[in-house]
Order: sequence, then structure tokens, then C-alpha cells
Amino acid sequence: MPGNSFGHTFRYTTWGESHGPAIGCVIDGVPPRIALEESDIQVWLDKRRPGQSRFTTQRKEPDKVQIVSGVFEGQTTGTPLALAIENKDVRSKDYGDIKDKFRPGHADQSYWAKYGLRDYRGGGRSSARETAMRVAAGAVARKVLDHILGPGIRIRGALVQMGPHAIDRGQWDWEAVEANPFWCPDAKAAKAWENYLDGIRKAGSSIGAVIEVVAGGVPAGLGEPVYDKLDADLAKAMMSINAVKSVEIGAGLEAASLSGEENADEMRMRDGKIAFLSNKAGGILGGISTGQEVVVRFAVKPTSSILTPRRTVDRFGQDTDIVTKGRHDPCVGIRAVPVGEAMMAVVLADHLMRHRAQCG
Amino acid sequence: MPGNSFGHTFRYTTWGESHGPAIGCVIDGVPPRIALEESDIQVWLDKRRPGQSRFTTQRKEPDKVQIVSGVFEGQTTGTPLALAIENKDVRSKDYGDIKDKFRPGHADQSYWAKYGLRDYRGGGRSSARETAMRVAAGAVARKVLDHILGPGIRIRGALVQMGPHAIDRGQWDWEAVEANPFWCPDAKAAKAWENYLDGIRKAGSSIGAVIEVVAGGVPAGLGEPVYDKLDADLAKAMMSINAVKSVEIGAGLEAASLSGEENADEMRMRDGKIAFLSNKAGGILGGISTGQEVVVRFAVKPTSSILTPRRTVDRFGQDTDIVTKGRHDPCVGIRAVPVGEAMMAVVLADHLMRHRAQCG
Amino acid sequence: MPGNSFGHTFRYTTWGESHGPAIGCVIDGVPPRIALEESDIQVWLDKRRPGQSRFTTQRKEPDKVQIVSGVFEGQTTGTPLALAIENKDVRSKDYGDIKDKFRPGHADQSYWAKYGLRDYRGGGRSSARETAMRVAAGAVARKVLDHILGPGIRIRGALVQMGPHAIDRGQWDWEAVEANPFWCPDAKAAKAWENYLDGIRKAGSSIGAVIEVVAGGVPAGLGEPVYDKLDADLAKAMMSINAVKSVEIGAGLEAASLSGEENADEMRMRDGKIAFLSNKAGGILGGISTGQEVVVRFAVKPTSSILTPRRTVDRFGQDTDIVTKGRHDPCVGIRAVPVGEAMMAVVLADHLMRHRAQCG
Amino acid sequence: MPGNSFGHTFRYTTWGESHGPAIGCVIDGVPPRIALEESDIQVWLDKRRPGQSRFTTQRKEPDKVQIVSGVFEGQTTGTPLALAIENKDVRSKDYGDIKDKFRPGHADQSYWAKYGLRDYRGGGRSSARETAMRVAAGAVARKVLDHILGPGIRIRGALVQMGPHAIDRGQWDWEAVEANPFWCPDAKAAKAWENYLDGIRKAGSSIGAVIEVVAGGVPAGLGEPVYDKLDADLAKAMMSINAVKSVEIGAGLEAASLSGEENADEMRMRDGKIAFLSNKAGGILGGISTGQEVVVRFAVKPTSSILTPRRTVDRFGQDTDIVTKGRHDPCVGIRAVPVGEAMMAVVLADHLMRHRAQCG
Repeated sequence: MPGNSFGHTFRYTTWGESHGPAIGCVIDGVPPRIALEESDIQVWLDKRRPGQSRFTTQRKEPDKVQIVSGVFEGQTTGTPLALAIENKDVRSKDYGDIKDKFRPGHADQSYWAKYGLRDYRGGGRSSARETAMRVAAGAVARKVLDHILGPGIRIRGALVQMGPHAIDRGQWDWEAVEANPFWCPDAKAAKAWENYLDGIRKAGSSIGAVIEVVAGGVPAGLGEPVYDKLDADLAKAMMSINAVKSVEIGAGLEAASLSGEENADEMRMRDGKIAFLSNKAGGILGGISTGQEVVVRFAVKPTSSILTPRRTVDRFGQDTDIVTKGRHDPCVGIRAVPVGEAMMAVVLADHLMRHRAQCG
Repeated sequence: MPGNSFGHTFRYTTWGESHGPAIGCVIDGVPPRIALEESDIQVWLDKRRPGQSRFTTQRKEPDKVQIVSGVFEGQTTGTPLALAIENKDVRSKDYGDIKDKFRPGHADQSYWAKYGLRDYRGGGRSSARETAMRVAAGAVARKVLDHILGPGIRIRGALVQMGPHAIDRGQWDWEAVEANPFWCPDAKAAKAWENYLDGIRKAGSSIGAVIEVVAGGVPAGLGEPVYDKLDADLAKAMMSINAVKSVEIGAGLEAASLSGEENADEMRMRDGKIAFLSNKAGGILGGISTGQEVVVRFAVKPTSSILTPRRTVDRFGQDTDIVTKGRHDPCVGIRAVPVGEAMMAVVLADHLMRHRAQCG
Repeated sequence: MPGNSFGHTFRYTTWGESHGPAIGCVIDGVPPRIALEESDIQVWLDKRRPGQSRFTTQRKEPDKVQIVSGVFEGQTTGTPLALAIENKDVRSKDYGDIKDKFRPGHADQSYWAKYGLRDYRGGGRSSARETAMRVAAGAVARKVLDHILGPGIRIRGALVQMGPHAIDRGQWDWEAVEANPFWCPDAKAAKAWENYLDGIRKAGSSIGAVIEVVAGGVPAGLGEPVYDKLDADLAKAMMSINAVKSVEIGAGLEAASLSGEENADEMRMRDGKIAFLSNKAGGILGGISTGQEVVVRFAVKPTSSILTPRRTVDRFGQDTDIVTKGRHDPCVGIRAVPVGEAMMAVVLADHLMRHRAQCG
Repeated sequence: MPGNSFGHTFRYTTWGESHGPAIGCVIDGVPPRIALEESDIQVWLDKRRPGQSRFTTQRKEPDKVQIVSGVFEGQTTGTPLALAIENKDVRSKDYGDIKDKFRPGHADQSYWAKYGLRDYRGGGRSSARETAMRVAAGAVARKVLDHILGPGIRIRGALVQMGPHAIDRGQWDWEAVEANPFWCPDAKAAKAWENYLDGIRKAGSSIGAVIEVVAGGVPAGLGEPVYDKLDADLAKAMMSINAVKSVEIGAGLEAASLSGEENADEMRMRDGKIAFLSNKAGGILGGISTGQEVVVRFAVKPTSSILTPRRTVDRFGQDTDIVTKGRHDPCVGIRAVPVGEAMMAVVLADHLMRHRAQCG
């Protein structure tokens, strides 16, 4: 089974290359009679759009989404939504000098090994440009969640670490997130990151980051044990985002160092409902949501497109060196924030409908 | 789509509860004409089997596997393999006093929220007993890998951290792994862990751990971008194991702190083949294997079954306290080592056949 | 993706060979809290069981089903149901003389071509013995339909043609169906068939048949256009039954000869609901149920196991002749009736839950 | 799981409505390095294109296909192919007077029951316009078959019955098929059909038909028992085409009337290979191809769009009458011929890659 689709009941398939005429997706399984227009999707795409500050790639893409099918008289029809975005700012000549060389840290060598050819223009299909379609699908998924549950689920992402510099979690302020170019919830850290990232950027270097995505209002009961656990599908969703190298749920890696006493999220009844006294579990136990906030974190590696020459080989089997020019992000983690939010939305919408299939 | 299956071309489905008459699985898609007998599977089950040292649960399960279908005259037929293991040492009465209480950190409350009932005997379906069938499927997956590629892929796991105590990676010795009850590659650390874990065990407490699984000999080209990336499927596979809270590939979480220069795995030709000068990528770029070792790490939380009373609620909505007696692992991470190896084998076998479908 | 599973939300996987120790299945996706015991399944298996009259194979199989997992305290748990039936009356020596020869009309040659080996004992996996598990899954599917909709869907099958002898549809009487060994709704035809089939049986020959399955009470709206249409999935379900060579919906093949005027099922309101004035469509339009009776017919070829010698070849590439002894059905169509009913139930349960996922 | 995709390893998903801006599909799993350009697809679309004779709808659609992604420098890349066709000749006003009425024999009522709304313009998603994308996917599937096997598989379709008028199978001539507007292999029958269909057309009526699709050169061994049998998947593929009401394999419905002796396709060795002396099986035994020609037949009902008024109801629950004007086919079966060929190609490509996954 080929790999360009995600989800089972809410299922989308993406297509398109970084430097082809357009990118797009087909979303199948969307419930009928949801009011949907392009602006409902555009608002999220605008969060991910490049070129909004000096800290992201300078490629100028308006990323205007079109709904090509699946909506009739302003409502979803229950048949496939087709979405498309034209590629506008394509400069393929930037890539001419690397067409035969494998960039270290990129997918060049592995695509070549798998397919015996590759679209070297901007990475072709392996480009992070594909994530625009994740954001579009995520926008539709949010509409589905609200349609089925009523407004209630709130999905928010934040950059919690840039390079070695983590935020002070005691300073977490969701309002700060929209007030700086990093989606950083700690205003003071955001300030410090500006200088830090300017240094990286001017040096033609790059740096990694950690993103946290939190979904509030998720009802208890979502997730399909034992393989399609909610956390397992979130892990797959996040790890499938370009450059992601780790995924954590709740306490995550730190859980290894905890005792059973520390790790157990105790419970008490509050106003007739279960209240947990902590959330080490990240809102998921046995692969099923508990009703607490679902908390996922993922680490993004630094962009491999840097100005310092690196040793590599070319497709003819010769040693060589490489410098990647083009237009790139000094910290791709920044633009991964809305992508992570979108994947959370997609996983929740899929599991909500899967749960509804079996349990009503 | 229900959640008790894993894989697409090599696909298995597990069934059975901790305290039912048996557990089992059906493996579909196994190539025909592979020599297979029960001992090929038993050898791996014996690694996971409980009660082999004082550091794992004292439940006595011989875990003798039976091949019930799919083998004829000693060879796989290409039709479904059915495997089963009888449950022998079932003490359901141990669970009588917790049948109405939700154990913190367990799946009790979330299963109840999802299904409106639960099999409280040993956790029913949410029990780690299910992982025996992962190990069995993994054993068959190893045979498939060898059948298609010839011997070459070597999958090995190790415990690299117990509680806060990490190994010294400079002391890594694969031979040490089999020589201590923890699958620890650092003999000195293993020695120290004995006392440490005895303390935990005697206190009726528990502790988390980190496991690393390494697959050598994996050919370049496996993985299906962009959603069924090899690392995305490994993340799902590992996160679906009971108690896992994080998954890392290669440099993992540390990649967030690296610069682009540090993170790029440079290449040089060696003897006509590409040699990488480092492996921050963990053997996967763009979701496709590079030919380097595939490296996955995952953190396991501490068992939630502890002797210290914890605050909780019962299914009638009353506050109460709970102590979990039963027979449990002070560090479930130990027995997760062969399970992690098995999931690696299953993911690789599935992706090898998927690759063969498309690329020949 | 391997082929031993059926369905998406109600999904089952079968395993086992005709002459192995047992056959079984795993049913995943069953809603929780349905009262279920073995007798709920046994009642349908008893309809299919061989050896009940002189007109079916004399193999004596009690076909006692066991529920091995997925039921707790008399209720489904929402986790996988595992069902198994032991094979009791296995006479593999009957097959010794055909182990190297390809029986014409059997799957011997095609299995050999695909897998390079075959389990010649009773056809191994290609045996109609597998259909016992379809009947078991169908029994559970019926429980699911009633659980979700309340009692209302009624699925009934009948033999409407034996060899060239069709029933008189004007004589259709559902009560007659249970009163003869053929599930024939035309008592007079059934009487005539007795002599006819005795002749076939005594000659060591065999004959084909046509089966009709009707589901009443199916709500309008089931089916997923455009590929997973309700009729498309019924066609697949029925064609996957051993020996089936055609599938028709409603008017079926006869629709080719109709004019648009004749074929249009006109509508009128009756008591506030849509009443169709005919049912050429067989209850399905555009792949979606209309609320009328869903009507499927399928033709079954004659058993290929006959006493007249046939020309064939063996696996060594030599011409030879063959006579199939063993114990066989002179008209396998008879025992296909409960199997067709079961497949109808499975398809409806799957589509009901799929519909619920998307449309609530 | 939503229903707008077909296939597992060769998997395509279609989108678009009859009167929307465009229709399209995404084909995933195509092997890399296949030379492919738009004209390779266009040649098959031109066979299906409407308005080529007075016997098909007069809607004028050039049906020019565009490859939007998945091809680089003239070769498939192994990543998703996106294809699109603009809708040019849309006259939605034709449908204004039927927007609230359910046309008998159409999907109007069932779509309404399922989704609670419908795109009444030309049937929206339920329109046979969707089949253009099946033909496009089929064109790519043919390239895949040739790429993997070398030229060898030949898929051809023919109209073998129009209304009650069947061809004389003794007159079958494949060359005649291209020489008349009906794809009829019997030149004499084709001549007679002209007058017959003119009468139907002028009366504003319509008539059904039977199509036969034959694939020669199919290697033995394709098909995945027991549910994804080659014939089961062909049955689903053909039944999913608009207006199809029956599917037969080989002898099909006639097999019901045959004796075991008549039905057994005997074998002899010829030039070192197995030669079958007849093909009642239609090239498939036990769900697996035998190496003989694969033969499928399907019946298409008459178009429901006719000029004679029919009784119906509207969406407000009122009785009414309806006349369907628009532009329609007097015998949609004609244009179903290339669609049936395409579905055969898609099923074979999918099963060829599935077989390769498991058996190499």
C-alpha cells in the first residue's frame, strides 16, 4: 500500500512537488452538511506561510487554497474534497548545481536508492512544501471536530525549545504565542531567541527545535487499542512531518526516570466528574484518551541546507563537497508549529469517527 | 477500522486477554516456502517470558507457542499463519478487590470510558501479555527478512537507561547484553542496576527505562513517503507497546540542540559504496532507509502497579484509595527489549515487501 | 495487502485448512456490550453443517464453535472476538493419490502456480470448509445489526435454481424454505429436485445452482460511493465464496434487456414514506441502499470432484487422468445458502458502521 | 473508511462532480521510471469521450487530461500521479426543474437519504462522468503491467448484447470491434443494432447492454485468496461502475446449469506448458489466475433519463411526475466498454504488485 495517505475514516491523500505547477490533496470521509469555504482553510495556511518574518525562508508563496470539489452551495457534500494550491515562486535554477550531488541530511541519497531517480528541484516530493496540505487537511479536520462535538476541542501549538534554549515552563502564556515570530509561549525566551537566531541565520547555519501541541476538550474514549492507539497514531503523525526525530506523549522521555508513585496520575471526583491531579500520561492511557489535555512534543532537527561546505558524494559515485544555497529556514521548527497542530486535528477527527463507528 | 492489526503486506492481528484461556495471532502475507517450526518462534518468546529472574513478574507462564495453520510439511504455505499460546498461570482472584476501582496510570478508566465495561482480570486486553504475540510475529518477520534478503539484517535491543541511571555509551558491548538480567550493554552499569532495582522491588515501587533497538544490514530504499515513512511506522510500532511514552530516531531529542553542520551526516565513497561519517539520522532520511544502521530508542514509564496507596475513584463515582497487589514487574522496561526488537522486525518485513511491490 | 480479511469497520480474518487441527477467525470492531454466547453462533453453523441429508457431503463435522476471546461476563468487550472450530472428521489418506495431480476445476494448479506448493489434503486453504467461519462471522454481524438498529433487518436465502431447473417465482413461500433439504422456496420444485439430485449423486456427478439472498428492513443510506458501493461490496463478498461464478443485484442480467421505462422503479408517498412501485434496482441506487429489500443472486458452479475420469496433468508436467473420490457435495449450492446469508450480514454490518462513522 | 479509492498497491482516488470545475484523480504506488506522457492516457480517454456518434450523449467534452504531479523529465517518480480534466460543456440549467425531484432509477433519493443534501447538477458525484478517471487510471495501469511484465497482457472489451439482442459468438471478430460505433465484435449484429438503437433514441427511451472484457497474457498466480480473490476484486470493480447490475466470470450464470463433467476445464501438456482444453473458469480457479484468458462480463441497465413521464416524489414528500431532459445516452453500455477495460487493467496491476510483494 502506497504511503501518501493518512487516516482511516477521515482520510486524506496529498500530491505535488515543491517546484511542480501545484500541490493538492483529496480529503475523503468528511461528514456532509458542514459549512465550508476557502477562508476557513486559508486562515490556517496563513500561519504556516513562508516569508512572514526574517526567520523563515524568503520564498514568496501566497498559498491561496482552492476548493475544487466536495462543496455544494457552501456545504460539504460527503463526497471527496479536492484542494489545490498553485506554486508561484519557483526558482528551479537555484538547484542546478546540486542536481547530481546528495546533500547530507537531505533525502537525496535515500530517494535515489529507492526510486533510481529524483526530482532535485527543491526536493520534489520530499520538500516541506507538502506540509501546506497537512495544514489544509487539519483545517477541515477542525471543522469536523466542531461539527460532531460542538465547539470544545482546542488545539494549540508552541515552540518550547530552540537549539539548546528551552523556555521557562513557569512563564507559559498562551497569549504570548501569537505575539512573537516563534510561536513561543515564554515572552522573555522569545526575546532572547531573536538575537540567537539572527546569529545562526547570518552565519548561514541552522538549528533544531522542540514543539509542543496541546489539545484541550478531547472527550475520553478516543483511540483503538492495541495497535492504533491514540498515542501510536499521534507518534506516526508527528514523526511523518519533515525533519522530526522524536515524539513524546505527556511526561515523555522523562517518564523513564520516574517512580511508579510519581508517574501515577491520581484521581478525585470533582463536580460529578473525574478530575486528575496530574497529567504525566499526556491525556492517554492504554492508547485511549482519558479526558485530560492531550499533550504531544516533537523535536525537529536543523535544516540541512547550510552555507558551510560539507563532504558528500554524487550520483556517479564520486567524492565531492557541497554548499546548499537556495532559500531556507534557519529554524524549520518555527513553521512546524501549525503543521503539528494540523496533524493533531487530523488524528483526533479520524479517531472520533472511528470511535463513532464502533461505539456510536 | 479496528485497531488490533499491524502492517500492510506483512500483516498480523492479535487476540486474547491476560486471563482468558489463550492468546494468539494471525499473520497474513507471509511468503510461501519458508521453513518454519515452533522452535523458530519459541526461542524469541523465551527471551520475553516472565519469571526468569527476580526482576520480572513472578507469573509462571511457559508461553509455549503452537502453529495451528499456515505450515505444511515444514514450510509456510503463503496462507495465514495462526499462532496460539495457552494461559496457564491465571490468578484472577488477585484482581477481585480492584474490579470496580480505576488504577491510576492504568487503562482502567479509559477503557471504561470507551467501552462501558472492562475485563478487570489482569487488565484484560490492555495487559502487556499481548506483547507475547508481538514477539511471535517478530520471530516470523525475521524469517521473512532472511528469506527475501538472505541472512544480513541483524536486530538487537538493549536497555540503555534504568530510572535516572544511563549507561556509559563508551562501554557499549553487545556481548554484555546477554550476560545480565537487564539486556544492558554496559556490564558495569548492569552491576549497579542490580542493587538499585532490588531497592525498588523491595519497596513495592517501580521505575521507568529507556530501550534502544538497532537494525544492521538494512538495505537502502525502505520506507514509503510521505506518511508511511519508515521512521513514522517505527514510531507508531514502538509507541503502541504498553507503557511507551517517547520514541526517538537516531539523534532523537538531542537533534533539537544541534546545528545544521553537526547534524549533517557527511558521505564519502569507500570500496565503491557510500560510507556515512556519522549517523545522526539513525539510518533514515526523508522516511527512507539510507543503508546505515536503523536506530530507535523508546522510553517506558514505570509500572503503575505499586504497593503505595494512591488516590483514585471507582466506577460508581466515589473517591477511594487503591493498592495494586498481583504479580508485577518492578521495571517493565526489561521485558520491553525483546518486544522492541520484534516490532523493528515486523516494520522492516512489512516495508521490505511494500518496497518489492512497487519497485521490484 | 494479504487477502484473508473482509470488511473495514466490522472486519474479520479467517485462518485454517480443511485438514489441519482447526479453523478459526478473529472479528475486530464489534461494538461493546452485546450479549453473545456460543449458541448464538452455533444456530447458524448448524444450518451449514455437512452431513445433514444425503444431498450434502458425508463428512461428519459437529462444527462446535468456541469463543476464545472478546466476551467477558456474557458481553462483547469491544476487543477482538476469536472463534475456533476443531476439525474432527479428517481423512487425509483419501487425498494421497491426487497429491501430485491437478484436479480440473479445482484450485490445485493455480495455487501451485502462485505459491510453488500446496496443501493437497482436502484442498487445504482453498476448501469450502473455510465458509464455516463466514457463517460464524455472519452470526456475529446479525447481532451487531440488531444491537445498533434494534430488530428489523431480516436476511434470508433460498435456492432458486438447481442445474437448469428454476423455481416458479409465483410459488415463492419463505416457509417452504425450511421444510426441504434444499432451502427451496417452491415446495413443488423441491420435490422434483429430490429425484433429479439423486440421479446426479448416484452417477457420481455434480450440478450447479443459483442462490438468492434477500435482506429486508435495511435502512436507506448504506453504501460508500463510488468504489465501495453497497452493491460492489456485495458483489465482492458473494464472488469470494467458493465456486461462485456470477453475482446479480435486483433485475441483474435481465436489466440488459429492459427499457428505461421498464427499469425505472417509480415512487409514491405512502403513509408519509416513500413507497417504490417495483424493485428492479434490488434496493440499491448509486451504490446506496434505498430502503427497499436488498436482493442479491449468485450462481454456483458444480463441484469439480466427480467420479468420471478427466484429463489433466501432474506437477511434474506429465499428462494423466484423474478421478476424485473423497466425500463431496453433488450440489454445493445447497450449503452455499447460509454462506450467502452470512456474507450479506457481514456487508451490512460493515456498511452500517461505516455510515455511522461519517454521517452519525 | 471512505469509498472513493480503489486498489491496494496500485491505488487511485477520484474526485470531482459532473458540473464542477474539474474532475481528477491521484494514483499512488506507480513504480518509478516508467516513461509517461499525457498522450499515453489521452488515447484511452478518447475512446470513452462522449459525442463521438449519434448513439452517445451530445455533451461535448474534449476530456483533455493533464498530469499535474508525479512525472519528472518524462518518467514516473514513484510518488503520486495527479491527473485532472476540466469540465467544459456544463449546462447546469438543464437540471433546474429536477432539483427537488427524485428521478426513478437514479441515485437522487439514495444520496438524499444518506447525505441529507445532493448536488443535482448532472448527478454531481454519482454521474458517469467519474468514469473518465477510471479510464485515465486504467491507462496508467496498462503502462505498469507492461513495465513489470514486458508487453504481453492485452485487455480488450466488446459489447456482446444490446437490449435483448445478443451477438452470434461464432461471428466474433476482434477487428470488427473498432469498426462500428458499438464496440461490437459481430459486424452483422452491429449493423442491426444501428436501426434498433435509432428507434430507441428517437423515442426518447433507453436500453441496457452486456459488455465482455477479456485479458490475454495474464500470468498464472495472480489473486489473493480467500477474500481478495482475483474474481472477487473484478466483481467489485465492475459492479462499482455506474449502472452495472450483474458480473459474471467465465461461464458465469450458465455454470449453474452445467454438470461437473461439462464444467471441468481439462488439461494437457503442450510444448512444456499446461494447455487447458476449455475455459469455463474464465481464467480463474480458487481466486487465482490460471494462465488462461481472464473473461469477465457485466450487464448495464438502461439509462434512467428518459422522456416518458414517470411517477415519483420530491424532497418535500409530495407525489409528482418527472421527465428527464438533459443530454443522455440511449445505451450507456456503449461507453461502458472502455471503462470495463480500464477496471480490468487496474485490478490486474494491483494484483500483480500484490503478488510481487509476497511471492517476489
